[in-house]
Amino acid sequence: MINYEDRGVSPHKPDVKNAIIGIDQGIFPNAFCKAIPDILCGSKDHCLLLHADGAGTKSSLAYIYYKENEDLNVFEGIAQDSLVMNLDDLLCVGAVDTFILSNTIGRNYKLINGEILKKIIFGYTKMIKLLEPYGIQIYNCGGETADIGDLTRTIIVDSVLATRILKKNFIDCSKVKANHDIIGLASFGKAVYEEEYNSGIGSNGLTAARHEILSSKYKEKYPESFAPEISNFCYTGKFNLNDKLPNTNLTIGKAILSPTRTYAPVIKEVLNKYKNSISAVFHNTGGGQTKCLNFGNNIKYIKNNLFPIPPIFKLIKENTSLSQYEMHRVFNMGHRMEIVCDPKVSLEIIKISEKYEVEARIVGKTELANNSSLTIITPDEVLEYIK
Amino acid sequence: MINYEDRGVSPHKPDVKNAIIGIDQGIFPNAFCKAIPDILCGSKDHCLLLHADGAGTKSSLAYIYYKENEDLNVFEGIAQDSLVMNLDDLLCVGAVDTFILSNTIGRNYKLINGEILKKIIFGYTKMIKLLEPYGIQIYNCGGETADIGDLTRTIIVDSVLATRILKKNFIDCSKVKANHDIIGLASFGKAVYEEEYNSGIGSNGLTAARHEILSSKYKEKYPESFAPEISNFCYTGKFNLNDKLPNTNLTIGKAILSPTRTYAPVIKEVLNKYKNSISAVFHNTGGGQTKCLNFGNNIKYIKNNLFPIPPIFKLIKENTSLSQYEMHRVFNMGHRMEIVCDPKVSLEIIKISEKYEVEARIVGKTELANNSSLTIITPDEVLEYIK
Repeated sequence: MINYEDRGVSPHKPDVKNAIIGIDQGIFPNAFCKAIPDILCGSKDHCLLLHADGAGTKSSLAYIYYKENEDLNVFEGIAQDSLVMNLDDLLCVGAVDTFILSNTIGRNYKLINGEILKKIIFGYTKMIKLLEPYGIQIYNCGGETADIGDLTRTIIVDSVLATRILKKNFIDCSKVKANHDIIGLASFGKAVYEEEYNSGIGSNGLTAARHEILSSKYKEKYPESFAPEISNFCYTGKFNLNDKLPNTNLTIGKAILSPTRTYAPVIKEVLNKYKNSISAVFHNTGGGQTKCLNFGNNIKYIKNNLFPIPPIFKLIKENTSLSQYEMHRVFNMGHRMEIVCDPKVSLEIIKISEKYEVEARIVGKTELANNSSLTIITPDEVLEYIK
Repeated sequence: MINYEDRGVSPHKPDVKNAIIGIDQGIFPNAFCKAIPDILCGSKDHCLLLHADGAGTKSSLAYIYYKENEDLNVFEGIAQDSLVMNLDDLLCVGAVDTFILSNTIGRNYKLINGEILKKIIFGYTKMIKLLEPYGIQIYNCGGETADIGDLTRTIIVDSVLATRILKKNFIDCSKVKANHDIIGLASFGKAVYEEEYNSGIGSNGLTAARHEILSSKYKEKYPESFAPEISNFCYTGKFNLNDKLPNTNLTIGKAILSPTRTYAPVIKEVLNKYKNSISAVFHNTGGGQTKCLNFGNNIKYIKNNLFPIPPIFKLIKENTSLSQYEMHRVFNMGHRMEIVCDPKVSLEIIKISEKYEVEARIVGKTELANNSSLTIITPDEVLEYIK
């Protein structure tokens, strides 16, 4: 069986965690994002957040899709991925209103032309405009595009968001409560603020998804799209980019490139109304469904009512060697955002989400326990994870 | 003759400039950094800056140096490069006091281990501590390390700084004045706040410097250190990393890896005392000595008193096909920071710089002209550049 290290991905990053030991954790240690004192404005009531992340290896897929189909539009989605990977992390700590944005694009000048850059920059602008009517302001401070082919095989798109919020509005998920419901917000479907059906893939597990699913023909054709060190384990699947994804109108290529949905409009309204009844918000990125396990003490998370597995994850599950256990540790499997709340407000929160046509449901609950753990009960299997 | 495009670098980035046409320019259009309204704190008197940049292809050199010499310490310098490329840009608009920092590290997990990450993170911490006694506060907000070998051959180290300053303290170099002196602050030597002699190379022109100078033996040995698309033009020099750089105590490898000097302590003191007599500050990064030409209207820049060319640039000049004209367009050639000021304060500014053991001199002046241009008069040649 192929594991993540074979493909050059350390799924739990022990060496990264080790490298940052001793680094100050800010005002709210072990929260979802690091908050620091408001040293820019000097307010004792506020904290600052500066968050950097990117679209990851999804841009490598956008590249081969563009080469195969001459479709530049997929790069708009990469800008969205890069932005939302930051924005939706910040939602988890209660930042929902006002952000400033910058980005870095690293490209191999021999392969990535100005038209692609234009599309990426347009993608940012489009996303900023899309969020405006919902009272979410993102101000673009510009960015840097570097020609660094000696470092970059194709293109890397990273973003950064800064914001400032009242400390009293900060959601500190290290204090997640027992006996709360876990509401899952669907990663798939079509929200009112989306143009087309979203597969739900997000921006995590893309190295696995690409190589597990796509055919070896891309290995021969696009050696620039993967690390040569993993060439024995790359593009081991059987599908072409333009094959249909069953039960959807999408091709497999488009489904894996589905831009990362933001939950900003939903979370903004939810927090405005029910902040005091919410003990944590989790963005299920790296770690997938097990992300919550990084947070809180003596909390047993039980998820027994996940969404039916969306078509893209079903395809991956049915056509790869990945176990259910691994799948849930890498992918969001159907909901990429979790709100942990007092059961009294669960139905109201679900209603708000559904207003935006983002499906939502109570996927599980939290319990007090001697040790932190996570149990996922699927129709086929019970999956147990410990901290 | 080999040109930059051959090596995958677009020196003037016309397609990048084209891609960002129409993007709002903020409060001070055509200034050195984009400033936006203070939407985070709501002060009409302040503006915000969010700036992203990185160490560029210098990290590829750090990688081969580390492989050859088993010396991890060079990665500390990469963190400094990445930080200073942001910090010193922000100095140019008058931001000198308080910053918040984040970073993204993209690595090929198969080649870059946790020890390297530790060194990079330590490099940031060290630099932050070094600047503290000078009243320059940088607060580390953490960052993201991504395993993206499918995108990254070795390692990419990008940083972002955010800050907030009074609008009245903003230096708007689009309004650079005629009949001002241009003070150059040396990029080479050993400042009081540096541990060893700095070659002055900075973080620009590194793709050219590496490939012009280093021997083809690195091409065979480290194919992961360059873009395969440029393999006919890579490592075309004759030197080994451990050869001595004439007239210094450095090896050539260490000289090209010399960490980018910050001018923060100097500029902070200079602006505190003479801000009102300064019309522009330029950080000579991309574009080298021609950087100033991007700014101001109807200004003729005349530089007739550059520093003697420091050893590292002399080596590049003497051992490559690069013309003087090109060299000055790519490298800083001896001073990486320029202060354009009323001649009345020139000597005082030079004194401040020399207090920090950063050599400084009047390198030239500005004149009113019908068109913007730059004339560099070297002992051998007169170089003319137009906007």
